[in-house]
Amino acid sequence: MFPGATADPSAPAYTVVGAPLDVSASFRPGARFGPERVRRFAETFEDYDRATDQSFSTLGVADRGNVHAWTDAEEYCDYLASVCREVVRDGAIPLVIGGEHTVSLGPIRAIDPEVVVVCDAHLDLREAYDGDPWSHSTVTRHALDTADEAVILGARSGSEAEWSRAEADDVTVVEPAAVADWTPPAAFAGRDVYLSVDVDAADPAYAPGTGTPEPYGLTSRELRDVVRAVAPHAAGVDVVEVNDRDDGQAATLAAKLLRDFVFAHADANADAADDASAGDDQ
Amino acid sequence: MFPGATADPSAPAYTVVGAPLDVSASFRPGARFGPERVRRFAETFEDYDRATDQSFSTLGVADRGNVHAWTDAEEYCDYLASVCREVVRDGAIPLVIGGEHTVSLGPIRAIDPEVVVVCDAHLDLREAYDGDPWSHSTVTRHALDTADEAVILGARSGSEAEWSRAEADDVTVVEPAAVADWTPPAAFAGRDVYLSVDVDAADPAYAPGTGTPEPYGLTSRELRDVVRAVAPHAAGVDVVEVNDRDDGQAATLAAKLLRDFVFAHADANADAADDASAGDDQ
Amino acid sequence: MFPGATADPSAPAYTVVGAPLDVSASFRPGARFGPERVRRFAETFEDYDRATDQSFSTLGVADRGNVHAWTDAEEYCDYLASVCREVVRDGAIPLVIGGEHTVSLGPIRAIDPEVVVVCDAHLDLREAYDGDPWSHSTVTRHALDTADEAVILGARSGSEAEWSRAEADDVTVVEPAAVADWTPPAAFAGRDVYLSVDVDAADPAYAPGTGTPEPYGLTSRELRDVVRAVAPHAAGVDVVEVNDRDDGQAATLAAKLLRDFVFAHADANADAADDASAGDDQ
Amino acid sequence: MFPGATADPSAPAYTVVGAPLDVSASFRPGARFGPERVRRFAETFEDYDRATDQSFSTLGVADRGNVHAWTDAEEYCDYLASVCREVVRDGAIPLVIGGEHTVSLGPIRAIDPEVVVVCDAHLDLREAYDGDPWSHSTVTRHALDTADEAVILGARSGSEAEWSRAEADDVTVVEPAAVADWTPPAAFAGRDVYLSVDVDAADPAYAPGTGTPEPYGLTSRELRDVVRAVAPHAAGVDVVEVNDRDDGQAATLAAKLLRDFVFAHADANADAADDASAGDDQ
Amino acid sequence: MFPGATADPSAPAYTVVGAPLDVSASFRPGARFGPERVRRFAETFEDYDRATDQSFSTLGVADRGNVHAWTDAEEYCDYLASVCREVVRDGAIPLVIGGEHTVSLGPIRAIDPEVVVVCDAHLDLREAYDGDPWSHSTVTRHALDTADEAVILGARSGSEAEWSRAEADDVTVVEPAAVADWTPPAAFAGRDVYLSVDVDAADPAYAPGTGTPEPYGLTSRELRDVVRAVAPHAAGVDVVEVNDRDDGQAATLAAKLLRDFVFAHADANADAADDASAGDDQ
Amino acid sequence: MFPGATADPSAPAYTVVGAPLDVSASFRPGARFGPERVRRFAETFEDYDRATDQSFSTLGVADRGNVHAWTDAEEYCDYLASVCREVVRDGAIPLVIGGEHTVSLGPIRAIDPEVVVVCDAHLDLREAYDGDPWSHSTVTRHALDTADEAVILGARSGSEAEWSRAEADDVTVVEPAAVADWTPPAAFAGRDVYLSVDVDAADPAYAPGTGTPEPYGLTSRELRDVVRAVAPHAAGVDVVEVNDRDDGQAATLAAKLLRDFVFAHADANADAADDASAGDDQ
Ligand SMILES: [Mn+2]
Ligand SMILES: [Mn+2]
Ligand SMILES: [Mn+2]
Ligand SMILES: [Mn+2]
Ligand SMILES: [Mn+2]
Ligand SMILES: [Mn+2]
Ligand SMILES: [Mn+2]
Ligand SMILES: [Mn+2]
Ligand SMILES: [Mn+2]
Ligand SMILES: [Mn+2]
Ligand SMILES: [Mn+2]
Ligand SMILES: [Mn+2]
Repeated sequence: MFPGATADPSAPAYTVVGAPLDVSASFRPGARFGPERVRRFAETFEDYDRATDQSFSTLGVADRGNVHAWTDAEEYCDYLASVCREVVRDGAIPLVIGGEHTVSLGPIRAIDPEVVVVCDAHLDLREAYDGDPWSHSTVTRHALDTADEAVILGARSGSEAEWSRAEADDVTVVEPAAVADWTPPAAFAGRDVYLSVDVDAADPAYAPGTGTPEPYGLTSRELRDVVRAVAPHAAGVDVVEVNDRDDGQAATLAAKLLRDFVFAHADANADAADDASAGDDQ
Repeated sequence: MFPGATADPSAPAYTVVGAPLDVSASFRPGARFGPERVRRFAETFEDYDRATDQSFSTLGVADRGNVHAWTDAEEYCDYLASVCREVVRDGAIPLVIGGEHTVSLGPIRAIDPEVVVVCDAHLDLREAYDGDPWSHSTVTRHALDTADEAVILGARSGSEAEWSRAEADDVTVVEPAAVADWTPPAAFAGRDVYLSVDVDAADPAYAPGTGTPEPYGLTSRELRDVVRAVAPHAAGVDVVEVNDRDDGQAATLAAKLLRDFVFAHADANADAADDASAGDDQ
Repeated sequence: MFPGATADPSAPAYTVVGAPLDVSASFRPGARFGPERVRRFAETFEDYDRATDQSFSTLGVADRGNVHAWTDAEEYCDYLASVCREVVRDGAIPLVIGGEHTVSLGPIRAIDPEVVVVCDAHLDLREAYDGDPWSHSTVTRHALDTADEAVILGARSGSEAEWSRAEADDVTVVEPAAVADWTPPAAFAGRDVYLSVDVDAADPAYAPGTGTPEPYGLTSRELRDVVRAVAPHAAGVDVVEVNDRDDGQAATLAAKLLRDFVFAHADANADAADDASAGDDQ
Repeated sequence: MFPGATADPSAPAYTVVGAPLDVSASFRPGARFGPERVRRFAETFEDYDRATDQSFSTLGVADRGNVHAWTDAEEYCDYLASVCREVVRDGAIPLVIGGEHTVSLGPIRAIDPEVVVVCDAHLDLREAYDGDPWSHSTVTRHALDTADEAVILGARSGSEAEWSRAEADDVTVVEPAAVADWTPPAAFAGRDVYLSVDVDAADPAYAPGTGTPEPYGLTSRELRDVVRAVAPHAAGVDVVEVNDRDDGQAATLAAKLLRDFVFAHADANADAADDASAGDDQ
Repeated sequence: MFPGATADPSAPAYTVVGAPLDVSASFRPGARFGPERVRRFAETFEDYDRATDQSFSTLGVADRGNVHAWTDAEEYCDYLASVCREVVRDGAIPLVIGGEHTVSLGPIRAIDPEVVVVCDAHLDLREAYDGDPWSHSTVTRHALDTADEAVILGARSGSEAEWSRAEADDVTVVEPAAVADWTPPAAFAGRDVYLSVDVDAADPAYAPGTGTPEPYGLTSRELRDVVRAVAPHAAGVDVVEVNDRDDGQAATLAAKLLRDFVFAHADANADAADDASAGDDQ
Repeated sequence: MFPGATADPSAPAYTVVGAPLDVSASFRPGARFGPERVRRFAETFEDYDRATDQSFSTLGVADRGNVHAWTDAEEYCDYLASVCREVVRDGAIPLVIGGEHTVSLGPIRAIDPEVVVVCDAHLDLREAYDGDPWSHSTVTRHALDTADEAVILGARSGSEAEWSRAEADDVTVVEPAAVADWTPPAAFAGRDVYLSVDVDAADPAYAPGTGTPEPYGLTSRELRDVVRAVAPHAAGVDVVEVNDRDDGQAATLAAKLLRDFVFAHADANADAADDASAGDDQ
């Protein structure tokens, strides 16, 4: 269980879903250990968050455990989508822990967002990789089958074809050096947003334990600021591509980002609720 | 290149083929690193073998490199079979380094043996695993589509259905404690034999770096004796399921077993050739 | 959850209890990771056991999770004893996973056996270690406060005072070389027996991941034979001193031994039940 | 021996004391290996420091070795305090290497400072943790029993109660983003200051090998600047919470910070002595 | 083979040469694994580079493999120089992967540059180390036997004698904090420049796997900017001191820097060629 | 300090000498960490030895620390020999911890034995390796410059030339399978014997952390029996080729073997002394 995910599972506000898919890693496998490892390294954190004056265990997070994965990524994403639809139908925000990046398609299909915000070193806009149309390097392209628009933060790697695809109107790429200055555009306010965090968006110094590490990435604080900024607008989140091939850095960071999402989302929603009820009072 | 595999690639007696397939590992992935790792740890060995008074580099071994793997195991085995058919057509004995156990189907289809001898902790006689009919745990069952008979040495794990299947006439199981006393039956003499070595046949003390370690296995010397005994009868061999999750023990053992196969096979063939030419002389 | 521990928790036949105490390790800490690690490495095993023709998941095993540990070993053992008393009162056999060896005192106090059989490289008969009377090196001495007799299998290390203590009538030491020939004495038949397995009884080749490795130990098969032989007589078992400082060997072996205990115990009980009901028929 | 700690032990200016206490780690143990590891990774450094034009081996550093630790943290800190009192009585500045953070209480009691400057991700202001009033997470609260004031640099984690405690007049918290601009207040000039460096103040990228890693921390240069700035005012220092669960990053950084303390302290003292003797000249 | 180094080896534009010398490491050996490891971790990268709109595999890079090393560094550098002379004579730019830093003397002697730009935490200006005049800590001094001038970027460690030597006119030291603002001086334009990258120039957070890690170093982006800026002027490059004692960070960074060198060099050369042919047109 | 090596250094019976030479490793370096690591893993052992009823700390063992190594193996062995001569002149038995095997030449030259007993997977009878006449693979040949005879136990690897050399009258090779039945010949009684233990004599299961692991080796008990049998005749011993590339198995075994040497040697000497004094009494 994710530490502090002690909510009554019948009516949670947020639901952790582990998605240990691990078939298409082209370099270093082990993303299957991500969910277990992220939960384990989350044990070091305090329940209380100073920035928002909230305690994690009071925010209604439940942990549904892992959705057992097999070798057919396409089928698995379908099944994961059905699990996430249940989560959403029950009124909860899905917090998905990968597994390889492909698993984002589960919550994305369940949520059907207008905008997908992706933190990633890679564009992930391929048609296929080594003949596999469900490779993790295709996930943002698949996401655009569902969403109208993708914003890719921290991207620094892609094939020539992917960079061409990225020039289309429905894709915005923010290079690593520009991420610190990025803020969610005003247009996010009224739209359904989904946030996907591939931990390789961070520099390998901050997250060595990932399948395809890529230098020159974001610092941990830059990633935090993106997550905290996007969370108030988001209807779901995932952190993916954490494996067990480091000394805990990647899992520690991923666990922290997931908590930051919850704190920022809950804080914004509470404010919104306060505003609403303040309005009611009049 | 496998150390000492310096033969003229146009007419080798033995051909190393790396087969880094790594999709169906149910527990710990990393078999994709097996070929690279086995070659690397083979660097510690002397060229010369005292037991047979031969030097490895004189025995006609070439290294074809790796057959790049992707996520479709069925297609990959087909392709690997075609590569191995070339090897065999060119008159060479394939020495395949996995990768997961499924890759044995490549050389087995190329050689079409009557008997398959398998060293393995597991029966690998499943129909499918998690819906995947090409899981590494199905390889011996698939092998029996090609071969008439399987002898499984060191097996100590299987589902109830697998053990039932193992009672059929075409399967012989030799439990670990009986392996030391096992010798190839006389019937092997005139038959086409293939040898497949899943490194998990060894006790995890001897080969911790494997996908599904199973205690109570063979010692390294017991495995060596099997390989040396079967090699003279064999038309091909593989060593599989070595990953990079130990300090080199599994790769060191696998590399040594592969060399022992070559030494024993070459020695027996040389003797046979001597006998034949001795006969010619008369 | 221990794989296959799917029994209805209200009336299990066996109950897994994790006891991650980790305060007195004098050399390498990490026994706190034992319960998690043993459960994880148990995932590689088949549900079915050929030797006894039983499936683990049908034998009534439940997993109560871990009993959270703190830094006071004495208090913790008291609390763990109360948890184990509940397990026993509910009619189940406790299967305790350490944690340091001290945790054996929990189930031993709950069961109050006449005989304690301990597999261990060390005598663990100290009065105290570094002033700590609850050090893991005192556990067998504490056990003798409850039990009438201790049999220590595989012991090869102790202080001079411990070896003197071991000469008393209530202690039997079986040195490693003699373990293969040891069988439970006839007197075990009618007595309450408890089995404690310190994984360092095994040679470090078989279980490097332990707090105080000691060469010249048992092979994995020797340990298995002891566990299978003692289990039919035993009212409880623990496997302790597994840490995370190896490539999985210690946890794999410990998980296997725990399963072997259950298979052998269930098999003997089923036979006994059969005999009894056969008797009833007359 | 700490490399370069070659001073005559009868009259050193600085004395290294290893304090391998390791009982209260709530997540990952191993701080007991800190002293050995910090000394070992210090071997990579040059004797000479460019910034201050001094050689470490000429600054009068001796190494007293480790004060053997046991499982009672309270008793151990008392004993360590007595050792540090000897160090201070002999006119030396203690340089303590932990061990868990609790060990700071040894030198703090020996020095009895007015101000404690703590670099730490955590407030460490708890009353107790899991019932243990000597947990490493209580050390700054205990320090305030001795000192009048604590300045906590880089703190980003604490319970709600700890943050409340931190609002009292005797605690100043400088959040990570503000540390780069922090300088010792003028009031430090005439006061007794002690510096405690919990290596987890650094971001896990810089110090993964620590018991409770916390993202969003300081860079190595930020930590260096704090150490260099505080050292001239300090009567003692410790670096704590380094364990052996990384590839040397934490120990390398801790060793460097300890040396930087000595260089900066000696440089300031030499200047002061020069000023004083310059004054004498008049 | 370095991924993408697919050029016709008879007329490459760039030639990768592995130089696994590993004898003089004073702290942590393993630089011998650098060439294999750098090539392996380069597999994660896309062929295409967005910054220069080029594909690596089209830039004429060939891989000559490793120049087998032995224990005599002086002889080895002589031999490596002869290999690099062949590379240069064939019109290619050598891309050398160490091995310990001493190997830079091979390409430097082959190229005979006027200026050597060195990224390094250490001055490497010693006469000898432990009596060994070919220690890696002497390489920049040896380089100045060939070159007229050395620029050392990121240096923060040296003996007193080395810092004195560094004050001579032929050495420029740029401390880590000043590297971000450094650009190649105008004088580089018409001169033969060689670039040597000791991976320990980076902070250990970015490259823990190196022989003598030194805190307070460069970020990965700072190193990239240096490499990209110097490459257009350079006639050769090396990346050295990568070992296998981390989770891939050092090798990943080194591989990326080597590619960045090629991209920047090729891009500048292409522009120059364009300019030249534009001139021809008139 | 080796644990228990608490003898007055002015007149020890045994002297530990660390010899961290590490230049000629052809595969995996790290033997330089052997002395530190062997001492560290010896901390797990009890002071008392049951087999001989002795306490290690009472047997007069002192630890001289390490003899700092540099890159010239020939010079180093000369220097180490002079250190060992001092040890011998002071009446002590040298206990040398390598370092690579070459270091045996230090104590061998100091002792000038008639017989050298070597436990080793390798013959080490080369003239040179890669042009290096002081490679660890030449040590037994060099030893025969001093000694009249070498007995090599557990050897299973060598070049053809080495095996030829091994057929000479002054070399006896006992293959691994024959070691269990080997006992010191009667002729040892009156001769000066030296014992050298290359830890790779053990199977890699028992000692993975060594430079050139070779399967099919000795068990830990077989090695112990050799050490205990030879010790009474020996005037010196070394354990070599332990590196830091495993989870402690090699160092634990090496430390234990060194202690077993001391226990067996002291026990035999005490008996001899008793016999002598018994004779005196008459
Ligand atoms: Mn991605
Ligand atoms: Mn990515
Ligand atoms: Mn198999
Ligand atoms: Mn298997
Ligand atoms: Mn015990
Ligand atoms: Mn024990
Ligand atoms: Mn702290
Ligand atoms: Mn802290
Ligand atoms: Mn350098
Ligand atoms: Mn350097
Ligand atoms: Mn040797
Ligand atoms: Mn050897």
